[in-house]
Amino acid sequence: MTDTSNGLNSYLAHWAARVEARLEELVTLGDLGVQQAMRYSVLAGGKRLRPVLAIAGHEAAGGNAEDVLDAAASLELIHTYSLIHDDLPAMDDATLRRGKLTCHKKYGEATAILAGDALLPLAFEIIGTSMERFPAERVVRAMVDIARASGDRGMVAGQDLDLNAEGRVVSAEELERIHRLKTGALLESSLRLGAILGGANERLLTALTRYGSAIGLAFQVVDDLLDVESDAQTLGKNPTDQERAKSTYPAILGLERSRALVRELLAEAKELTGEFGATGCVLAELAEFVVARKH
Amino acid sequence: MTDTSNGLNSYLAHWAARVEARLEELVTLGDLGVQQAMRYSVLAGGKRLRPVLAIAGHEAAGGNAEDVLDAAASLELIHTYSLIHDDLPAMDDATLRRGKLTCHKKYGEATAILAGDALLPLAFEIIGTSMERFPAERVVRAMVDIARASGDRGMVAGQDLDLNAEGRVVSAEELERIHRLKTGALLESSLRLGAILGGANERLLTALTRYGSAIGLAFQVVDDLLDVESDAQTLGKNPTDQERAKSTYPAILGLERSRALVRELLAEAKELTGEFGATGCVLAELAEFVVARKH
Repeated sequence: MTDTSNGLNSYLAHWAARVEARLEELVTLGDLGVQQAMRYSVLAGGKRLRPVLAIAGHEAAGGNAEDVLDAAASLELIHTYSLIHDDLPAMDDATLRRGKLTCHKKYGEATAILAGDALLPLAFEIIGTSMERFPAERVVRAMVDIARASGDRGMVAGQDLDLNAEGRVVSAEELERIHRLKTGALLESSLRLGAILGGANERLLTALTRYGSAIGLAFQVVDDLLDVESDAQTLGKNPTDQERAKSTYPAILGLERSRALVRELLAEAKELTGEFGATGCVLAELAEFVVARKH
Repeated sequence: MTDTSNGLNSYLAHWAARVEARLEELVTLGDLGVQQAMRYSVLAGGKRLRPVLAIAGHEAAGGNAEDVLDAAASLELIHTYSLIHDDLPAMDDATLRRGKLTCHKKYGEATAILAGDALLPLAFEIIGTSMERFPAERVVRAMVDIARASGDRGMVAGQDLDLNAEGRVVSAEELERIHRLKTGALLESSLRLGAILGGANERLLTALTRYGSAIGLAFQVVDDLLDVESDAQTLGKNPTDQERAKSTYPAILGLERSRALVRELLAEAKELTGEFGATGCVLAELAEFVVARKH
């Protein structure tokens, strides 16, 4: 659970709640089953980490958080689409996600595929409408960046590699490549989206990308560690990676070296936050949060 | 087969070949299975009608066809993604597409889902890079338009309604709604994409949309008529709509009224082409082509 007694968690709690409220408004119901499925999965909970990273990236570039709220919230639509498709029978074949039935278990496979298919363009539509608040050049650049991070040079590549790594032993380098693509690409692009819309220079974009890369990988190693330490019930997902014969950091590096890797990545991320002005404080605490989460 | 002895078919043949060559270059192979699947399906043939409509829309707005080539070609990526997902076992469960194995039959279901998932953002990435040639405002507007046409207010809505109409009798109005969304939305948006990038005014955009709507519906009624008149082998798809218990125009209106509807839609489309300057000639012949195709 989040602890609201310190600065970071107020930032995270405040903006996650604002994002949640916008998602309620942005993903509207028409008369279609696919729209119910979209809403069900988008509003099924989650830390809203990607939107909050986008908001922090925007503030680091000197922007006003409110201006980027919708574009930031749209990142959660892309993340949700990827979870819906990853959970499908042909992929991870998951029954539960955050303690609730996965989209295809609730609405059927066809509707789940379509719900994912519709969430991705909805995200682009919403980012595009932020042209009312930002120069169009920045909007196009942000959209191209997110498109690249979502496709076969980003998130989809990670999922493809992940599926092909099942049932065989992969090297630490291969595992890192999988996670940098599958989780890291969108986290980095979330930070950049906010920063690009805020008019960031190349130096800031590079630093944010490196920061995102470090916390993205740390996030994944922590996920693997949690998977070892918990069971399916606590995490609200199943089957576990172990049951799916997926390679994990603890399996490849051992528990101790995995924990040391998390500490190194956290230190790297925190060192970079010196580049981010006052927002550096928030991003340092966000990095701590990513590593400390126990949910 | 296309007849190259008249003006339209030279236009279509010329630009379809240019689009084909660009698709070869735009959908590149890395080391991933998903990229092979993307290329297989994108380069599996097709009339390249949506790109050619975008190019004609661009010329109608006074633009230079070469400038819009990449953005136009990207429409074929969106169309291909929709075909890959429509063919999945949970959807139409098709084995053949244009006489070749469907993507999931060739590469497996997981890879096919991912290939579709990656083609959509690749299209947005490519449209975004056309900012080198067009004002960024136009590029954002075109991207938002395509995003809307691809999502749960467009193509995905049509597919959702189509799946839910299986096995029951639908009214002519319901069938029209399905097709206007499933096929019409992207055809209309293709014309508008070219026109928006060319700086079209609202009057031209409205006329192109109405033209696209008419030929989109005509296209679908002709498809239904071909389905009745041919068998699965000739069309290179299976199972047929009849086997899937899908409602078709001939089933609802009868053959004669379906054919009359095609003639009315063709007349409506051709009447609108007076608004399109010299490009009107091309668009009138394209409308004829859509209705006359027999393959």
